[in-house]
Amino acid sequence: MRIYDIIMKKRDNEELSQEEIKFFIDGYTDGSIHDYHAAALSMAIFLNKMNERETIDLTDAVMHSGETIDLSNIEGVKVDKHSTGGVGDTTTLILAPLVASLGIKFAKMSGRGLGHTGGTIDKLESIKGFNTSLSTEEFINNVNNINVAVIGQTKNIAPADKKLYSLRDVTATVDNISLIASSIMSKKLAAGSDAIVLDVKVGSGAFVKNYDDAVELATLMVKIGEGMGRRTMAVISEMAQPLGNAIGNAIEVIEAVDVLKNEGPDDLRELCLTLGANLVVMANKADNYEDARELLKEQLSNGEALEYFEKLITAQGGDINFINDYDDLPKAKYIKEIFSLEDGYIETIESDDVGIASLMLGAGRVNIEDDIDHSAGIYILKKIGDYVTTDEPMAVFYTNNESLIEDAEKRFHSAFKYCDSPIDHPQLVKAIVSIDGVKKFK
Amino acid sequence: MRIYDIIMKKRDNEELSQEEIKFFIDGYTDGSIHDYHAAALSMAIFLNKMNERETIDLTDAVMHSGETIDLSNIEGVKVDKHSTGGVGDTTTLILAPLVASLGIKFAKMSGRGLGHTGGTIDKLESIKGFNTSLSTEEFINNVNNINVAVIGQTKNIAPADKKLYSLRDVTATVDNISLIASSIMSKKLAAGSDAIVLDVKVGSGAFVKNYDDAVELATLMVKIGEGMGRRTMAVISEMAQPLGNAIGNAIEVIEAVDVLKNEGPDDLRELCLTLGANLVVMANKADNYEDARELLKEQLSNGEALEYFEKLITAQGGDINFINDYDDLPKAKYIKEIFSLEDGYIETIESDDVGIASLMLGAGRVNIEDDIDHSAGIYILKKIGDYVTTDEPMAVFYTNNESLIEDAEKRFHSAFKYCDSPIDHPQLVKAIVSIDGVKKFK
Repeated sequence: MRIYDIIMKKRDNEELSQEEIKFFIDGYTDGSIHDYHAAALSMAIFLNKMNERETIDLTDAVMHSGETIDLSNIEGVKVDKHSTGGVGDTTTLILAPLVASLGIKFAKMSGRGLGHTGGTIDKLESIKGFNTSLSTEEFINNVNNINVAVIGQTKNIAPADKKLYSLRDVTATVDNISLIASSIMSKKLAAGSDAIVLDVKVGSGAFVKNYDDAVELATLMVKIGEGMGRRTMAVISEMAQPLGNAIGNAIEVIEAVDVLKNEGPDDLRELCLTLGANLVVMANKADNYEDARELLKEQLSNGEALEYFEKLITAQGGDINFINDYDDLPKAKYIKEIFSLEDGYIETIESDDVGIASLMLGAGRVNIEDDIDHSAGIYILKKIGDYVTTDEPMAVFYTNNESLIEDAEKRFHSAFKYCDSPIDHPQLVKAIVSIDGVKKFK
Repeated sequence: MRIYDIIMKKRDNEELSQEEIKFFIDGYTDGSIHDYHAAALSMAIFLNKMNERETIDLTDAVMHSGETIDLSNIEGVKVDKHSTGGVGDTTTLILAPLVASLGIKFAKMSGRGLGHTGGTIDKLESIKGFNTSLSTEEFINNVNNINVAVIGQTKNIAPADKKLYSLRDVTATVDNISLIASSIMSKKLAAGSDAIVLDVKVGSGAFVKNYDDAVELATLMVKIGEGMGRRTMAVISEMAQPLGNAIGNAIEVIEAVDVLKNEGPDDLRELCLTLGANLVVMANKADNYEDARELLKEQLSNGEALEYFEKLITAQGGDINFINDYDDLPKAKYIKEIFSLEDGYIETIESDDVGIASLMLGAGRVNIEDDIDHSAGIYILKKIGDYVTTDEPMAVFYTNNESLIEDAEKRFHSAFKYCDSPIDHPQLVKAIVSIDGVKKFK
């Protein structure tokens, strides 16, 4: 087999066999196939597309390019969740203890933040003593004992995806549904869970800009997951504005605890209930979606979800004192109220710009090796549809470096557009996609 | 300007500007744009194509990626010829002195052979003392004095083409008309002549397999040449079988001398007259094609063409004694008659296989640094339409290494297909393409 012939085949719009796809991924991983081969093939795939069968085979090959996690020593259905990337998205911190409190196994590997989106691992490391680097044995023991553990991703998950994604990123071949779907699913499948809920963000702040594309991507990922023997569902959720009010690390932890205390912002709570209910159904802990939601609401109001968050923290060496005293989390030296530059209803928010403003305050990183300021971030007081005036604060900035505020504030303001007439609050959950089809929400 | 955006633009089937094309070629030449960028862009160009304007700009950028030869110190119209690559094609050795004998300036840079096709420089180096590495000053002086000089290509002609062609060769992006046309024309234009005749080969032994594609390629190259201010014409010629009878180096020199002596194979003579007549017309030495042909025939019969060949050899340090005594050229130790394996009419000949058989006897090279055996080669006695029997020789092999004969013979025989009924000899010259259109030959 020769990579030349494989490139030529896809160039000529022919279907690649499983063996050809595996030959490409294995060779690219071990370096016998070069970046320029992969670049030519990626462009051919981009323009001539892959069908569902090819996409599943690609996912399988990428998934097996490195380590796959064996969770068979954990009893019961292991669940996982993936988000296509949002700003202020702290759902994992809520979802993990919430579903664990119902006896569902949540063995979660998470990433660090990069660019305008934050990462669960960074958020958890705001908590004093919290250890995100458990050994595989500790990880599995913890899930067996308390149903939940959250650790950093091991380096060797789907190495072909890391290489291929970096290449696609510089050769204008990212935006292809097969390549996106296989990239996401290869990592999720390698992480070893039995049931996966995908949070596919759509809107100005997401990389999928319109509803139809989001449904297409969600449907393909569900088919890949199910095709490879995992229960898979997807939620299409709006990313027209940051989720919840907090964007940062410590302040997102506080917001998560608020939700676990049955308080907190409605949109964040709603998304957690929606994602969670799908996991509860797939884990066979409820007969239907509505029953599952009721079960989860009960866990929030009876305090059991919060109790599991405390168990999770304690089991991973963290200090739970902050739960009743938020001052125990990293605190910013500089706190500044930000005022609107004009009166009006907020019409649109560019979430990316808000995420970048938060990064500029120290909450995020441009390069993976950068340090972050866990106390930094932005707490938004006004969202789409809210009326703002120039004499009331619309956000609060947190940082340890006062000199960063001015530029961050400019970037923050650039994210907002206003209008004179009242405007509806955007609908958060747009649809749920399963192997049986799309259930659209009104 | 960013290469990413340029790739994305072509990916999205948009037209690239002159500046964008130049940015790509300059960056690829200096190494700031990487192979993977060029591979992705080449595939996007392959699949979404380039229009005529983009192709001319690409040619211009590639042509200016290195040295361009300044022939302004040579008086009169400087002509050049290019062939898209054939087996047994020794036209340059005939054409150069033939048109020079009419006072036309033929300042020619040629290449060495690689793979199944031979190179003019290797052929000339069969001649004792012949120096193919003149200084630019000597080169120009010779053309001014005797109208003709033939030297090896300088290393720095269109370096972007060398890089891009090597890359296209391993990424399945060779067969695109814009990329092929710009690759050929960039080098020809950099070589500095005022008028160019292109010999576009078509058929089983050429990389262009059918007539329509050949006309399309020829037309595009003529438009590029004329678009950049050079007189340009193209001849579409059949490459269903090797040209002439000799395939090798010394034996092709002999065949060229035969034609210059007004003898030699008809097809080789005919192609030289056709190519030459177009040059004569473009150099304003005749009013029309027919007159030009007559002039050239006269130069062959009156001995002046041969005289200019002798001048060329002498001016470049070669010994002309071989012209009257072919034994003065490198002679093979082993000469073997090859017999047909069956009786019948020759129906088809795969020229590539004959070229490779000759290479296997030592006449060619696989890698550019390989040595060649100037005496080696194949003299074909029978061509398409000829009747062969198993008891008469169909070819003669020449080599200095007897052990090479067996494998070469197998390869040689694999090139031939036979049939029982008589078959026409193929038509050699199919059309002449000028900026005014296509003149098809019956």
